Amino acid sequence: MGNELNCSMFRAMDVLGDRWTLMVLREAFMGVRRFTEMQRDLGIARNVLTDRLNFLVETGVLERRQYQDRPVRHEYRLTDMGRELQPALLTLMHWGDTYLSPDGAPALMEHTDCGHVTSPLLVCEHCREPLTTRNVRLTPGPSYCEGEDPAADRAAAREHDRATAA
Amino acid sequence: MGNELNCSMFRAMDVLGDRWTLMVLREAFMGVRRFTEMQRDLGIARNVLTDRLNFLVETGVLERRQYQDRPVRHEYRLTDMGRELQPALLTLMHWGDTYLSPDGAPALMEHTDCGHVTSPLLVCEHCREPLTTRNVRLTPGPSYCEGEDPAADRAAAREHDRATAA
Repeated sequence: MGNELNCSMFRAMDVLGDRWTLMVLREAFMGVRRFTEMQRDLGIARNVLTDRLNFLVETGVLERRQYQDRPVRHEYRLTDMGRELQPALLTLMHWGDTYLSPDGAPALMEHTDCGHVTSPLLVCEHCREPLTTRNVRLTPGPSYCEGEDPAADRAAAREHDRATAA
Repeated sequence: MGNELNCSMFRAMDVLGDRWTLMVLREAFMGVRRFTEMQRDLGIARNVLTDRLNFLVETGVLERRQYQDRPVRHEYRLTDMGRELQPALLTLMHWGDTYLSPDGAPALMEHTDCGHVTSPLLVCEHCREPLTTRNVRLTPGPSYCEGEDPAADRAAAREHDRATAA
């Protein structure tokens, strides 16, 4: 298996890897839609919030909708793409709860359909059995390109370094 | 629901948010254990690789084991904590495949137990039904602390900015 196989993971992390972006996204998942409410909750500078909202709209995670005419006001809602980040965010949260929260989880996940406080379990969409490090194999997909991407990965990592240092 | 509920997610992202760290972790998941092999695969500077390996060992994601006496040589293996990052990495990869890879997935996930090329599905560990944005509710957990953490979140975000700009 080539080391270029998982670059979708890097692309995903480029969206989520910034802490302010993640805080804005968390607001969206909590149902907060308006700039002023996000600003009040997060206590961040207007230009930082504007920047992160624009980034999430450009990426396709949020959509901007006008909800008022005079004066013009917009709200921000999760798109399907945004909502489908939930599994990644819940699994990250669960891992952090398990290994990085020595005083116990800050939040519990309740599955309201069955009423249990639960933990997320990752299963195969076909047989519904758990996926583990022993039973998942990654194989080349449609956009696999051996020998090309490792260099691209390195270049992207350097670019990422530059961008985060800017 | 307070906006401080999910800080485990931030703690998790502090581990994964650096691209080189993620590249080293990817090597570990592919079974690459030795410094020289990682360096050859990734083409990164020795000091950068050393830095990221030390970070992952300190965090508890990797363990360092001596495999040779003269000269002394170590290898790096995923701990249980490290292996349990798999659900987060697979869901991130799947999201990136779906939304950020217009030419198709670079890699396909095969569930070797049932033999299907699959997608990861997040379910409730109790009833095994899918978790969605409509049926998961976050409630305060043991280390929930209303009114305290939003400021801590902001301070941590600023600290994160400083660290990534360093």
